[in-house]
Amino acid sequence: MKKIILGSLSAALLATSLNASAMDAEDAIQFRQAGYKFMAWNMAKIKAMAIDGKAEWNLQQVQAAANSIAATANSGMGALYFPGTEKNVGNTKTRVNPDMFKDAEGVNQVGMAFHKAANELAAAAETGDQNAIKKAFAATGESCKGCHDKYRLD
Amino acid sequence: MKKIILGSLSAALLATSLNASAMDAEDAIQFRQAGYKFMAWNMAKIKAMAIDGKAEWNLQQVQAAANSIAATANSGMGALYFPGTEKNVGNTKTRVNPDMFKDAEGVNQVGMAFHKAANELAAAAETGDQNAIKKAFAATGESCKGCHDKYRLD
Repeated sequence: MKKIILGSLSAALLATSLNASAMDAEDAIQFRQAGYKFMAWNMAKIKAMAIDGKAEWNLQQVQAAANSIAATANSGMGALYFPGTEKNVGNTKTRVNPDMFKDAEGVNQVGMAFHKAANELAAAAETGDQNAIKKAFAATGESCKGCHDKYRLD
Repeated sequence: MKKIILGSLSAALLATSLNASAMDAEDAIQFRQAGYKFMAWNMAKIKAMAIDGKAEWNLQQVQAAANSIAATANSGMGALYFPGTEKNVGNTKTRVNPDMFKDAEGVNQVGMAFHKAANELAAAAETGDQNAIKKAFAATGESCKGCHDKYRLD
């Protein structure tokens, strides 16, 4: 991953883009949940290979998983958080804390931290250095948790 | 996206990896659906910007979306198709055609086509050439459809 588009999360969060305004709130919630779910799978794969030893080490798979996480982090998911998506819509439930929508500065902070960590994980995977990968993986997990603790309801 | 890991889909489909065997069938279905859903969002963004003109052209966003699609295509989702995932599990419904699990050659064909198209879309986005992006986007959509027509039930 060569490109690091820092700041895109908060910028997108605050923007009223054509994309956002034309998008159904229920779709937006489902798209962002899909992104997190797919990242969870990729995080689990790296954990199994690099941390727990529950799966055989395979650098190509670690890199693919890390690239996927970074690309998701770089995809501008902030655009999926717009007014109307702070609550359940139809049959789609969200665990987002509605307070998040009033805290642009806090969102920017956790968003940037995640963005940085995910791209550093992809960079570490690119080097193939297992210790660097472990460290970057832990930092990425921490950055996920940083947002969950603050903006995800139980 | 520098890396193209061709053949990983079919290889993973046929492999009984630790990852797969340790994974719950319901989780696997949800993970693969998350991947497709998140790609649908990224495809929709490129469509709105590059094809329909429903959103303002933004090369950085087109690249981010294309990179996300390619990284998903490269992530080894074939590992999420293992015996037990050919039918609904718990509350999780799948639209996969069970015949897919008996057609390794056909799966390889559609998988490779999608893989190639997604990575070519990312490469086209990298160049910034709008015509190349439109062409690669259409080819990617076709490759999605190639699998849907064959292996997705209505």
